[in-house]
Amino acid sequence: MARSKTMDASAKKRRAKETEKKIQRLAERVVAQIKKEANPEVKIPIRALSNVQFNERKRLIELGDREQSREFFNVSMAKKFMQTFLVASAVKEHLLESGKTTSIRDLYYMTKHTIRGSKENTFDDQKESDPVIEDLEVSLDSLREELHLFAAKRGSMVGPMVIVDAGDEIDLSRMGSGGWSIPSITEDYVIQFKKTSAKYILLVEKEAVWHRLNEDKFWRKHSCMLVTGNGQATRGVRRLLQRLAHELKLPLYVLVDNDPWGLYIYSVVKQGSISLAYESMRMAVPDARFIGLRTSDFKKFGLRDDVKIALNKEDEARAKQMLAYPWFAKKQWQKEIKEMLKEKFKMEIEALSNKDISFVTDVYIPQKIKRGDYLV
Amino acid sequence: MARSKTMDASAKKRRAKETEKKIQRLAERVVAQIKKEANPEVKIPIRALSNVQFNERKRLIELGDREQSREFFNVSMAKKFMQTFLVASAVKEHLLESGKTTSIRDLYYMTKHTIRGSKENTFDDQKESDPVIEDLEVSLDSLREELHLFAAKRGSMVGPMVIVDAGDEIDLSRMGSGGWSIPSITEDYVIQFKKTSAKYILLVEKEAVWHRLNEDKFWRKHSCMLVTGNGQATRGVRRLLQRLAHELKLPLYVLVDNDPWGLYIYSVVKQGSISLAYESMRMAVPDARFIGLRTSDFKKFGLRDDVKIALNKEDEARAKQMLAYPWFAKKQWQKEIKEMLKEKFKMEIEALSNKDISFVTDVYIPQKIKRGDYLV
Repeated sequence: MARSKTMDASAKKRRAKETEKKIQRLAERVVAQIKKEANPEVKIPIRALSNVQFNERKRLIELGDREQSREFFNVSMAKKFMQTFLVASAVKEHLLESGKTTSIRDLYYMTKHTIRGSKENTFDDQKESDPVIEDLEVSLDSLREELHLFAAKRGSMVGPMVIVDAGDEIDLSRMGSGGWSIPSITEDYVIQFKKTSAKYILLVEKEAVWHRLNEDKFWRKHSCMLVTGNGQATRGVRRLLQRLAHELKLPLYVLVDNDPWGLYIYSVVKQGSISLAYESMRMAVPDARFIGLRTSDFKKFGLRDDVKIALNKEDEARAKQMLAYPWFAKKQWQKEIKEMLKEKFKMEIEALSNKDISFVTDVYIPQKIKRGDYLV
Repeated sequence: MARSKTMDASAKKRRAKETEKKIQRLAERVVAQIKKEANPEVKIPIRALSNVQFNERKRLIELGDREQSREFFNVSMAKKFMQTFLVASAVKEHLLESGKTTSIRDLYYMTKHTIRGSKENTFDDQKESDPVIEDLEVSLDSLREELHLFAAKRGSMVGPMVIVDAGDEIDLSRMGSGGWSIPSITEDYVIQFKKTSAKYILLVEKEAVWHRLNEDKFWRKHSCMLVTGNGQATRGVRRLLQRLAHELKLPLYVLVDNDPWGLYIYSVVKQGSISLAYESMRMAVPDARFIGLRTSDFKKFGLRDDVKIALNKEDEARAKQMLAYPWFAKKQWQKEIKEMLKEKFKMEIEALSNKDISFVTDVYIPQKIKRGDYLV
């Protein structure tokens, strides 16, 4: 198979250059303040529930425009001010300029040292450096991935598609039982979609269900991209889904358990999360279609009582919380969540195996998709 | 690339047939007992610390030969007896005969039902079915994977090797940034090694370190297979490592954190674990070489004080426990563990990034391997 190293490398370099410039500008603004003998400060958008809203038109959760100021001459802010520039400079010098990417843990070690002539550490704990990274992301309007930082990798994909991953052409229809491991950074300078005959994307919450569908070669029969996030989808998986949905105009179906956690997984894929509201724009897929499992499926598919699991207190509290979210305000969602609360049970996708091991492959998914039996 | 579906499929079928026969014999023995009007029973090797030993010659942890009897006419055993055959029959009929594999969670649902005319469930919780699966494994002398059951998938591999995975030929030197996702079942009827120029295998505990090494194309420069288990290696990863080490006669190097947990990860890869002693034989790699961060590396590589993390009480207790294990009885291990306890600190691999982001790639690993600076 062919390689396309050069194109890939130059796109990566170009993108890195842009981010470098943003950091440069951030620093230059502070230098200018110093020259004017003003108190150096950085403006940082506030990342808190109070500054988050659901944008009805775009149908996603986004950050408002309230900012906080981080000042150098301020006893409570001086350390954080220093940390912000320490992280920014490490990102620029050690990552962007060298074209390398690394983990947020690694960055913590890279920037940790004892300040000369003192016993004070720049960072005592990764808990201090992680929020500084998020501050930088929002201040620069650059995703973590554009700062060449990644979180843990999780999730797999197979299907009728050829992609290029870091210069290597990979045929995702020939990935055996393991599948292609979705990397943490799925930006277009790393991953390019070459050609595909896929008609839709199917995201399944659970890896075991993904395995079942892969073994049954569901994706071949139904021409779809089969993705699992192994639970909550990582940033890498979410970004990949959005790129697949937008660039290739593929509908996205989401298959999760019938419980509040499943609803939450779906909702984050659909409109983003509160804690990462600043990145919804580039991760959310507002048209994502929910294909279940639903409370009504218990009767619809004639499931047996012994697959019911009683809702616990936490489930109930979570479900009630969801009833209040504006993104679940639509009639069908209110009905769905209320039904779960009324019936007082949850079910796992694996419950379908109670009927037959391949029931999910042969009956459940094809029927839901064919009949347009989904919620949005 | 070519496909080798047929060979693969027939090997899988043959293996499944063998396991089916074992289940058949288990059942026939019970039928014979019934005909003789004896109390039907199954002999199950005891899976407990009391029946586990370290085999000095084979250098692995193995199960002793003490057995327990599970009887039908015994109030405390009747339910478990029934469960054992329920699982065995589901495995035979729904998995082995159809050539399908599934998760242990799925099997729980497949075998869960309310017993007719009663309110009694065959299983109330997966906690009941999981041990029954292990009982079957030891009784039949068949690994879980041979029963067509899998646990969660985790871990990735890249390197100069072409493999066949479920009939698909995959070039592991062209896997981009994500790598090949190691499946849960890595038996030879699923995964075959075709050709390779690898000289050794490098297992790294941490995915972030694997990513660093993959991005630096360490495996290409040093001709090695680069594997991560994302923490504790799964059964699939361990089986794969053993097959690579034995079938291809490749030495295995293990890179872990400098802490008792890192030592534990290494020791499980090397000689197996107490809880899964019955499978060490087919998972352990007694010659595995420890190149994992050591207390002495702090001085050797001139690391800075701020990468030291104080041992906590749990670390100390774990380290002391390890001192007592017969597989760490060798002088070099006693010295290593005692040094950790004496110096009272642990370090993560990422500590090396404190020197330089690619220090682990450019200096640490090549130097350790070149100088034979490892422990076994």
